[in-house]
Amino acid sequence: MNILYDAQLDGELPDNDKQQVLATLSQALPDMTLLHREEDLRPFECDGLSAYRVLPMLVALPHTLDQVETLLKTCHSLGVPVVTRGAGTGLSGGALPLEQGVLLVMSRFKQILELDPKARIARVQPGVRNLAISEAAAPYGLYYAPDPSSQIACSIGGNVAENAGGVHCLKYGLTVHNVLEVEVITIEGERMTLGSEAFDSPGFDLLALFTGSEGMLGVVTEVTVKLLPKPETAKVLMASFDDIEKAGKAVGDIIAAGIIPGGLEMMDKLAIQAAEDFVKAGYPVEAEAILLCELDGVEADVDDDCATVRGVLEAAGATDIRQAHDDAERAKFWAGRKNAFPAVGRMSPDYYCMDGTIPRRELPHVLKGIAALSEESGLPVANVFHAGDGNMHPLILFDANKPGELELAEEVGGKILELCVEAGGSITGEHGVGREKINQMCAQFQPDEITVFHAVKAAFDKHRLLNPGKNIPTLQRCAEFGAMHVHNNELPFPELPRF
Amino acid sequence: MNILYDAQLDGELPDNDKQQVLATLSQALPDMTLLHREEDLRPFECDGLSAYRVLPMLVALPHTLDQVETLLKTCHSLGVPVVTRGAGTGLSGGALPLEQGVLLVMSRFKQILELDPKARIARVQPGVRNLAISEAAAPYGLYYAPDPSSQIACSIGGNVAENAGGVHCLKYGLTVHNVLEVEVITIEGERMTLGSEAFDSPGFDLLALFTGSEGMLGVVTEVTVKLLPKPETAKVLMASFDDIEKAGKAVGDIIAAGIIPGGLEMMDKLAIQAAEDFVKAGYPVEAEAILLCELDGVEADVDDDCATVRGVLEAAGATDIRQAHDDAERAKFWAGRKNAFPAVGRMSPDYYCMDGTIPRRELPHVLKGIAALSEESGLPVANVFHAGDGNMHPLILFDANKPGELELAEEVGGKILELCVEAGGSITGEHGVGREKINQMCAQFQPDEITVFHAVKAAFDKHRLLNPGKNIPTLQRCAEFGAMHVHNNELPFPELPRF
Repeated sequence: MNILYDAQLDGELPDNDKQQVLATLSQALPDMTLLHREEDLRPFECDGLSAYRVLPMLVALPHTLDQVETLLKTCHSLGVPVVTRGAGTGLSGGALPLEQGVLLVMSRFKQILELDPKARIARVQPGVRNLAISEAAAPYGLYYAPDPSSQIACSIGGNVAENAGGVHCLKYGLTVHNVLEVEVITIEGERMTLGSEAFDSPGFDLLALFTGSEGMLGVVTEVTVKLLPKPETAKVLMASFDDIEKAGKAVGDIIAAGIIPGGLEMMDKLAIQAAEDFVKAGYPVEAEAILLCELDGVEADVDDDCATVRGVLEAAGATDIRQAHDDAERAKFWAGRKNAFPAVGRMSPDYYCMDGTIPRRELPHVLKGIAALSEESGLPVANVFHAGDGNMHPLILFDANKPGELELAEEVGGKILELCVEAGGSITGEHGVGREKINQMCAQFQPDEITVFHAVKAAFDKHRLLNPGKNIPTLQRCAEFGAMHVHNNELPFPELPRF
Repeated sequence: MNILYDAQLDGELPDNDKQQVLATLSQALPDMTLLHREEDLRPFECDGLSAYRVLPMLVALPHTLDQVETLLKTCHSLGVPVVTRGAGTGLSGGALPLEQGVLLVMSRFKQILELDPKARIARVQPGVRNLAISEAAAPYGLYYAPDPSSQIACSIGGNVAENAGGVHCLKYGLTVHNVLEVEVITIEGERMTLGSEAFDSPGFDLLALFTGSEGMLGVVTEVTVKLLPKPETAKVLMASFDDIEKAGKAVGDIIAAGIIPGGLEMMDKLAIQAAEDFVKAGYPVEAEAILLCELDGVEADVDDDCATVRGVLEAAGATDIRQAHDDAERAKFWAGRKNAFPAVGRMSPDYYCMDGTIPRRELPHVLKGIAALSEESGLPVANVFHAGDGNMHPLILFDANKPGELELAEEVGGKILELCVEAGGSITGEHGVGREKINQMCAQFQPDEITVFHAVKAAFDKHRLLNPGKNIPTLQRCAEFGAMHVHNNELPFPELPRF
């Protein structure tokens, strides 16, 4: 993967002397773990997007919020950039360290501070794993709704930073819809409470602003989340189509019928074949596309909804509709979907995974466009996605050993994202911008909008010390690359920004 | 009502010459209606909070977005502040004009630009009335959920500015939860699109930031809203209690039972008696409190939920539970609640309406506190509120003709809001901060937080020309008044800010 060197990002940040920074921090924080030897830093060189690797200058593992505050204040006064990291499962390089920066690791804050089943809230520290909240709430019949596929490992602080979603977010919302209050510390060491347990909060909605800000506005130190009652039952329907556009249209028809499925996933022929070959999910390999539609709630409602969805699928031209008979078959249907990425990985030496989001009604049109791009380039594209919320994951297959194929795959990927933007969608659905999609932001936004982003960033962090080089591109980057050149990354990967 | 003169708000804004501003605007906008004679300005001197009145310097009524853009650019270059107004139904003086400013009235933009029943969205101009959207969607069985009581008159642009709620917002959310995309123009005349029809948007969540920003960040020029399917049926239960704290506790119990009512309203004895006396709603006048609980959805579910809620109410100690037999009785039950304010108005020469919000679980505790404040001061307090979302409307009864009673009422009001803040709540639920609650913001937020608000404001409007003096207090105001003095407004009303 290539990435552009962003020399203009922060003007003239000092070339910090590692020994001096280490000495100052050690003096200010005698009891905090500070890692500085190369072998200790190595495990922190990347997050879930392992193609990008940078050894941080230092790694800090605080035990207390006072230590976090002092660390931030000290870095602020030294002019040292800080990248905050939770569990490091992000897929866009949002927690990628900086060679001249401190990596602040929040993994020691893993206490559930309060769980009130009656008020249906949990107050937790940022290092608490997503799934751990649901596990703690399970005895009360409650759970925390957002369920990114990394939920066994990812932590709630990172979920807030990335506004994490999951297969159920169509019905239950993203992180921003499930968080009531967040405690943060700014780069200047100020502690702030954003949002409240009450329904609304006066002033500007800083809680929503902070959620999904990818660590650029402050460090999350405590999160109060909503807990929901577990649905009584869940059933899944699988529909086959002889035409992918018909399947795309059926997605809109289901929603238009007034049904909000717990999950609504789509796979095309290539993905079906790969998954079936890999996990024997019982998929119809001759179909051009399948839809998996999970309905959850009270038993009687779920049965009603199943009947309605079945009618909609028939009217949309489904050639076959099957309902999982029991939980074992339901799990098998989902196993195919959940293993689609590694399954496609078995078919091709390399693949490039996109994460565009489009309005649901544009699905048939965009699918047609992707098919045309695939044919034109000669690179197969497998489509696997959260159809209900229009979040597409086209997987472009290529062989990096064949000259020019990587570049071609990147070009096709860029064009697919442009197609998403043109259709009124966005360049990322749930993986964030991070380092990976910094160029595509120039296709998504106009310079005036980028300018406002920078001004909002400056409202919290004037010297741009928190996670610089992620999420928001510089105006210069946008001017150079522009909407027509998002796929044209000219400089090779190793030349990452220096501060 | 008293208000503090805020001389420091904007430093040294020029004392604009009306004739000169009029001449410049008339030249830049030959086709736009500009009102400048006192008799033409008079109808615009206040919004729904009629206690505050200021004659604007000029009123502008543009026909096109190009005119809005030019107006803003011209005012920006002249340094003239601009207050934007929708239908003017707001209750906190958010659209109160400025003597030295232009009042930009958006009421001519009232076209529904698109209504897509399949995608369940409507794209409308800012001057479209809230209820007009539901009326246009009704033939498709759809409606727009947020329903402020002014919905027959208030417009969607103002709804976005105030993040309007309504009796159904517990279940269906506030404006921010029902808006997908907003087009705005900044004070510098830049047009921006915030949010998208797609599920999530990369970069910072400017859509949420803008929603509820009370006209301080830009002018709303187009809004894309979600439409929901109309519930099949709605039923209402009325429960009587011999103790207001028991009623408060029952509210939390209903939610804890996994029920989200369409509406959950509470009234205390004084409010019950006033309403019954006024509209003969069939209320139990001997009860200390009543709860009205509306359940909506599919017939069978609503029946199940009614049974569950009935059980919860009995367990919570309700002395009587009645279900409205038909739509006529249901309407009668609601008529009492909806007319509670004017009904209380008949009991006392004056009343002061508060709008605090608290976590639901704090209801019993805060109700006790309000009762103590009422007893201590000798001023009766009637409680009428959206109990489900913890949004209280205590009405403090007083007689402005009795020396000291107005001041005493304001003091009790301030203490009630402090009680809300101490309980983890906020000083306003749905009416906004506007001009009215600018001092109470100092009780809600710390100086560090106020500083961030100002910095965010500056990101959009560096010279603070959009709606200055509303929503966010100056640091000096907060320093002078502090958390302990929010009810101590020393200067009389007419001395409003000058720019």
